Amino acid sequence: MILGIDIGGTTTKLGLISGGRVLERTRMATIGHNDAGSFVDALTREAKALADKSGAVVKAIGVGAPNGNQRTGRIEKAPNLPWGQDLPLAELLAKEFAVPCQLGNDANAAALGEWYHGAGRGCSDLLVVTLGTGLGSGLIVDGRLLLGPFGNAGELGHVILVPDGRACTCGRNGCLEAYVSIRGILQTHAEVTEDKLIANTDEGVKPIADAAYHGDKAALSTFDKTAAWLAIGLANAVAIAPPQRIVLCGGIAASGEVLFGPLRRHFAMDILSIHSGKVELVRSGLATDDAGLLGAAALVEHHREE
Amino acid sequence: MILGIDIGGTTTKLGLISGGRVLERTRMATIGHNDAGSFVDALTREAKALADKSGAVVKAIGVGAPNGNQRTGRIEKAPNLPWGQDLPLAELLAKEFAVPCQLGNDANAAALGEWYHGAGRGCSDLLVVTLGTGLGSGLIVDGRLLLGPFGNAGELGHVILVPDGRACTCGRNGCLEAYVSIRGILQTHAEVTEDKLIANTDEGVKPIADAAYHGDKAALSTFDKTAAWLAIGLANAVAIAPPQRIVLCGGIAASGEVLFGPLRRHFAMDILSIHSGKVELVRSGLATDDAGLLGAAALVEHHREE
Repeated sequence: MILGIDIGGTTTKLGLISGGRVLERTRMATIGHNDAGSFVDALTREAKALADKSGAVVKAIGVGAPNGNQRTGRIEKAPNLPWGQDLPLAELLAKEFAVPCQLGNDANAAALGEWYHGAGRGCSDLLVVTLGTGLGSGLIVDGRLLLGPFGNAGELGHVILVPDGRACTCGRNGCLEAYVSIRGILQTHAEVTEDKLIANTDEGVKPIADAAYHGDKAALSTFDKTAAWLAIGLANAVAIAPPQRIVLCGGIAASGEVLFGPLRRHFAMDILSIHSGKVELVRSGLATDDAGLLGAAALVEHHREE
Repeated sequence: MILGIDIGGTTTKLGLISGGRVLERTRMATIGHNDAGSFVDALTREAKALADKSGAVVKAIGVGAPNGNQRTGRIEKAPNLPWGQDLPLAELLAKEFAVPCQLGNDANAAALGEWYHGAGRGCSDLLVVTLGTGLGSGLIVDGRLLLGPFGNAGELGHVILVPDGRACTCGRNGCLEAYVSIRGILQTHAEVTEDKLIANTDEGVKPIADAAYHGDKAALSTFDKTAAWLAIGLANAVAIAPPQRIVLCGGIAASGEVLFGPLRRHFAMDILSIHSGKVELVRSGLATDDAGLLGAAALVEHHREE
């Protein structure tokens, strides 16, 4: 039994996973703790209560977190998490539970989750792109998760797409994430409709997707522009490190055909002829509630294989 | 002793290599043969004459070629080579010499040559970019050459840099190679000087580099623009698959500081902060005449390690 922990900007999910299924689950707030220490205390209490409730013996812990570094086991200066310093969470949890703990980047965890249990099964080379508040990505290269020498490979959200383009949260300009993310899409929609105000992000892009399904021209145009930007980003990633398949997950991917329709069209035009027809483009194969937990557990599964 | 063969668009070089040194060498024309068969016959004759001359016993053959596919051992529809069909050269040479033959993409061969014997030594993760007629690249990822599932990874020349930009030889628009290659730089220089005619490519970019060293403003501006485009391409490659070092080789890289000065400045601005100061940017560590031959031989050396 693996304890999976999926740390998000507002909510942290915990689950007990065996054989690629979530058997028990709970959740807690990520925010509202005074400091990292009280977050870790609360997390430990929740995890122990979950294990006690099920009577299961936890053999290992997997944690997916923004800016999680698998080489150090630390969450490093995550801009969306409510503590400033680096947090050596893998070490703290391993000590507390006396079992091994693997901590990794949430986008890498998602990639492993899709690879082991979702829409990426059977590929030796896979790109998984998580579209939500930001744009995260994880790459499986020749049967292994690509970490890179600094533990932070696969930052597709921060390839520069439009030189001197929109300001990005990373401090630079024109990154793919500034165009293809909840905030990016809302900004595109505001530009298309010539609204001065960008809608709030609580509902994500669902209202725009709903409008697009009802034939709203501005909403359709917003998704077409989004698809055009994303297609270039994906085609460029394929040129450098070609996968057999690209899996899109996260809230924006759940928009379905209003995104995937134009995306497949643009992607077919943008991809190099030597890769034409070779790279599949599919949606996540995991339930939204399970994806992060299965991904966190997959960090443990992948580590065992290495 | 390894027989290295470096097939270029006009000239094919042959060399006998041992311990990372070229001990004997010769060359022949790539063009001017009636068909692929007579090219292979001429190549075989030259290779046998070279081996006879030195008295060495050839134990293996390595071939670097445009569009060489290491997975199939074929040169596949190379647009700059004077035969149309796929050429199973590895199989033909292995039969003729009764030794193993490794054939690969010329940019991948260059990457392995720099990794084993040049400026890439000691890196687990390395990006080698060859700047010449085109822009080729090879990636070493976690101690292995990245081939990808289709045998054609590392096409950094064909990441789309400027949507709807300059026409590229690949049939699409705005590829990095359309800006950063001999032809691309000559076109930039023509745009900067508002010349209607693009200079011929026989001398490459050397006349522009010479003018830049003499303070010519248009030439300096041409290199600054080239550096700005290349820096974005490199920073984007680093975001996806970070190397510890980037080695630039080929004729354009020989321009030296008029290119590397602005390139280092732009690259430092374009790179993600998480990679800041971590990725070295250096020039080839091999003599121009040796690089292709050592790269071809390194295809054999790398294959032996796998």
